[in-house]
Amino acid sequence: MLNLKEDERLDYLLAENLRIIQSPSVFAFSIDAVLLARFVYVPIQKGNLIDLCSGNGVIPLFLSARTKGQITGVEIQERLYDMAKRSIEYNGLGNRLKMIHGDIKDIAKQLGFGKYDVVTCNPPYFITPSTEEINPNEHLAIARHEILCTLEDAIKASSQLVRQGGKVAFVHRPGRLIDMITLMRQYRLEPKRIQFVYPKLGKEANTMLVEAIKDGNSDLKILPPLIVYNEKDEYTAEIREILYGES
Amino acid sequence: MLNLKEDERLDYLLAENLRIIQSPSVFAFSIDAVLLARFVYVPIQKGNLIDLCSGNGVIPLFLSARTKGQITGVEIQERLYDMAKRSIEYNGLGNRLKMIHGDIKDIAKQLGFGKYDVVTCNPPYFITPSTEEINPNEHLAIARHEILCTLEDAIKASSQLVRQGGKVAFVHRPGRLIDMITLMRQYRLEPKRIQFVYPKLGKEANTMLVEAIKDGNSDLKILPPLIVYNEKDEYTAEIREILYGES
Repeated sequence: MLNLKEDERLDYLLAENLRIIQSPSVFAFSIDAVLLARFVYVPIQKGNLIDLCSGNGVIPLFLSARTKGQITGVEIQERLYDMAKRSIEYNGLGNRLKMIHGDIKDIAKQLGFGKYDVVTCNPPYFITPSTEEINPNEHLAIARHEILCTLEDAIKASSQLVRQGGKVAFVHRPGRLIDMITLMRQYRLEPKRIQFVYPKLGKEANTMLVEAIKDGNSDLKILPPLIVYNEKDEYTAEIREILYGES
Repeated sequence: MLNLKEDERLDYLLAENLRIIQSPSVFAFSIDAVLLARFVYVPIQKGNLIDLCSGNGVIPLFLSARTKGQITGVEIQERLYDMAKRSIEYNGLGNRLKMIHGDIKDIAKQLGFGKYDVVTCNPPYFITPSTEEINPNEHLAIARHEILCTLEDAIKASSQLVRQGGKVAFVHRPGRLIDMITLMRQYRLEPKRIQFVYPKLGKEANTMLVEAIKDGNSDLKILPPLIVYNEKDEYTAEIREILYGES
């Protein structure tokens, strides 16, 4: 029934009792995707959600445990799109989750403007470096670098897809905070909740979660700090709960 | 020798072994000023520093323990200016610290453009409310509300005063993060270091410290979280060290 290709593995999404196809040489999700899927506001009973730069579908899969709504994932790399599609089938979620193989820059024209209640995105983090420095693995390079999708592309597409009053949530590096805020405002997305993730107490933040509202008013909250490791270098209780569902 | 007026008290700045004149009905400094004075980069051996919206001079007094440079404070309220002046004299710091009674909106014309290495500012936090809601105590109202000085006034004046490559540091509420960043960029101040202050683990940030560089490049760090109280509602070790010099 399940067709695993090359070095693919079928991993657990532990907290949600789901399985996901991953491959170290093509794509494996990071903790950032899990944090975003748990950070974002979701309507519980119904709604239209869409995840951009979806990779192997990790965010749609996680979101499916938090909402009964319809969830769409968009991924430009056919190889990753194919992994996501097979994971959705394997988990029996084909009635609520679907993947689209496409470019987010054109996706609103295809899917319609202002049709979504929630947009999520874990975009490539790194400005495209010179050709010599780039990861020779094309799949990883596209997933990590702004080759096919810049931050502005992702924010613009989110703003086109979300309805007025709907939510848009991104995860990114704190170094891009100012770009993120400036671009969001430019595309009528008003940041309302930001959470910084610190690897440890006493360390600089290495991740940020940002949620904005389309045409929202100006009223920003900085949520409690999320600390990943305790002083013994073990996951904190909060992170164990997010990753493994332990409480 | 020391002339205390009305309900003024002579309080300790404990960590620095200095004294400061305060008055509950006119102005008493907050922990935010102390955090800013300790957060900002300062040149140690020499340099020109200026503090805007200086109140009773708490930030210049704290900074005097961190640098041998010249420090100027600017305060628009004569009553507070006078308190600051007397505190500086009482501490015997008149050779390095001076207060100016003036409006920051005109101060660069008076003091010169681009003459300062460091600018600090703990501005009024609150958008001016309607006349009925405003604090009937004029001194406190002016110190707390954007009556005589908006955030834009303070950022504009900072940008005029600081030299290229010099530092500008503000403390404010996190709700103003987006305004702060947008206005700083508008006035050629590039935010480089932001620290969020959380009253307790698990609580939203209630204070933010921002340091920018005039004409700096884009490279922002989110510093380690500063937590004020521990789970027993006592000051954390880090805060005790800042306030009392205990380590």
